[in-house]
Amino acid sequence: MHDVINDEFYMQLALDMAERAVGQTEINPAVGCVIVREGRVVGLGAHLKRGEGHAEVHALHMAGDSAQGATAYVTLEPCSHYGKTPPCSLRLVESGVCRVVVACQDPNPTVAGNGISLLRANGIEVTVGVLEERGRELIEMFAKYITTRLPYVTLKTASTLDGKIATSTGDSKWISNAEARERVHAMRHRHQAIMVGSGTVLADNPSLTTRLAVAGLHPMRLIVDSKLRLPIDARVVTDGLAPTVIFTTSHADEVKRIALQKLGAEVITAGDGEHVDLRQMMTWCGQHEIGSVLLEGGGQLNGAMLEAGLIDKVILFYAPIIAGGSLAPGNFSFAGVERMQDAYRLQQVKVETLGDNICISGYPYGKSSENGGASECDKEVEDDVHGAC
Amino acid sequence: MHDVINDEFYMQLALDMAERAVGQTEINPAVGCVIVREGRVVGLGAHLKRGEGHAEVHALHMAGDSAQGATAYVTLEPCSHYGKTPPCSLRLVESGVCRVVVACQDPNPTVAGNGISLLRANGIEVTVGVLEERGRELIEMFAKYITTRLPYVTLKTASTLDGKIATSTGDSKWISNAEARERVHAMRHRHQAIMVGSGTVLADNPSLTTRLAVAGLHPMRLIVDSKLRLPIDARVVTDGLAPTVIFTTSHADEVKRIALQKLGAEVITAGDGEHVDLRQMMTWCGQHEIGSVLLEGGGQLNGAMLEAGLIDKVILFYAPIIAGGSLAPGNFSFAGVERMQDAYRLQQVKVETLGDNICISGYPYGKSSENGGASECDKEVEDDVHGAC
Repeated sequence: MHDVINDEFYMQLALDMAERAVGQTEINPAVGCVIVREGRVVGLGAHLKRGEGHAEVHALHMAGDSAQGATAYVTLEPCSHYGKTPPCSLRLVESGVCRVVVACQDPNPTVAGNGISLLRANGIEVTVGVLEERGRELIEMFAKYITTRLPYVTLKTASTLDGKIATSTGDSKWISNAEARERVHAMRHRHQAIMVGSGTVLADNPSLTTRLAVAGLHPMRLIVDSKLRLPIDARVVTDGLAPTVIFTTSHADEVKRIALQKLGAEVITAGDGEHVDLRQMMTWCGQHEIGSVLLEGGGQLNGAMLEAGLIDKVILFYAPIIAGGSLAPGNFSFAGVERMQDAYRLQQVKVETLGDNICISGYPYGKSSENGGASECDKEVEDDVHGAC
Repeated sequence: MHDVINDEFYMQLALDMAERAVGQTEINPAVGCVIVREGRVVGLGAHLKRGEGHAEVHALHMAGDSAQGATAYVTLEPCSHYGKTPPCSLRLVESGVCRVVVACQDPNPTVAGNGISLLRANGIEVTVGVLEERGRELIEMFAKYITTRLPYVTLKTASTLDGKIATSTGDSKWISNAEARERVHAMRHRHQAIMVGSGTVLADNPSLTTRLAVAGLHPMRLIVDSKLRLPIDARVVTDGLAPTVIFTTSHADEVKRIALQKLGAEVITAGDGEHVDLRQMMTWCGQHEIGSVLLEGGGQLNGAMLEAGLIDKVILFYAPIIAGGSLAPGNFSFAGVERMQDAYRLQQVKVETLGDNICISGYPYGKSSENGGASECDKEVEDDVHGAC
């Protein structure tokens, strides 16, 4: 229980509700709303599904007449534009609430403060920035998508303390512990798509689905496969558990392409080079409203995506083991930097222990501002193995 | 301040005193002692220097007649044998203390409970095991030495998140942050010797001394140098700040050997093979009363020592950076295991953050019981670079 009852007390509940809905709103942000009047919670709501009611609408509906003179706590600035639903700012004004507390402003350029202005112009007191950091983190994937139209990419690896994701013979079962693996499945639930190289499929024939103690949402499966080496009987092609999109080049074998398409997989040409153009691939994702991608690649795909400036967040799990082997695949395989000061530096590093495993996470483009500029990434990514399973 | 005054309250002070003396007692364990009578601390002592008074002797001396009827808190079981000083158990009996509280039993086979028995046989109440874990950790280096006559080896590395200790061009400045580097110098102060390969000396010409905000003790310098490639003008040879011992093989050039000896370095032959026999080297250290070694090697020396079963503890610092480079040297370079389940598994893993650096430590032979059995280690350790500086 909380010691103090204040704005944070109610905002925290709004954030908790939104957090539970992350993964089920597609490109939309998860939002929570709590309406409080004269010391009582009178309305609760969260945005649960794209195209359906926003958090404020659900909460106001529950509050009914009690909204009159109440305070609304919303994790994200109420929208000011007509989208799939009417603007929530207007709905709040009409409801008669006299105060709105917001965790953070909407990064969507078509809102970006307009919702707050609209509320204030109608005489509503607005407080912005209550639990702002948590509010921003909650919508970090949406913020990337809505400002760049590119998906937010979270890279996940599980390695040894010497950075190996398999031994020199290719064995990788198991590096991380059950707790870490459970986290990964929660991450799959929260992302719209999962991305691996065809090498991972060839090596392990993974389903790339979400397996949790309760039902979860399966991410769409994105396979990087420059030479269309994907077997037509691969689980991702045949199991029908989630859509599968295969990215290849214009040189791909037409017969194989048609065979895969007939089995229900989508095959997309991304680039005319020897390898899939990863930026083109991400652009396609954005155009097709895939706003979040969980990259569970091997070292080469990880390295290529990192070098292409396409990674937004890295989540690295370490088991407390040392495997050795100069040919054993590492968590990041790429040419690498020449000077240590040019290494990719994580920002806002978080460290957590999960049993005897360690989870280190952060945002990777701390140092080199030019990292985000690469327009093509011509890497042997499809030979990449030992990623997800 | 402590909320509760009890046995732990006083034992903690005894441990604190001992902890401050780690590094200055050579092969002897650091020990602290607090004597308490009728609610007052009447004596304080710590073992400060080998050959000088034990903790109990100092504390009893301070207590004088107040020891009569008092309780003595000692971090380690009082000794029962005549060594460089008379047995402390006897001294405690003579002093008139009526109770002795001990953190842990002495691992020294010639004591191992005899001190406690002697006290009890003389009617003194003895309590064993107060803050035992901290007491054991305090003397872990001594415990290894006194039971095996081999030095306790602590391996330290500083690497990137992909396990690199330098870039592909060899640049390694700087990986870890100031806080982590300061920790390393504290570790040097606490070990009798520091160990690197000659490659590290050739690359960086380090002094391998202890640099702290206050004066520290320099460790003896142990250089693994199979082919006596060490330059005669290397700092470790010429600066005179600490003794330097160079380990080579019987094939080493005699002229170079004499030149190094003339400059004051000791040159020891460890093995007739192509490379230094690391186990022979450790045996020599034990025979020469070097009870603790801080290994600041590069990946190859680290890997060779790990495979030889000669590492007792690993302390791995990670900077939140990703460097890449398949030829960039890693923190552990060795052939490696074939099955992930055979990887060296750290036990009692501790994770700590130092600013944005992460420190992961543990004891490396969790899984494979046979790891400790290798009798010779024939590795290219002298080509090892980018270790300490």
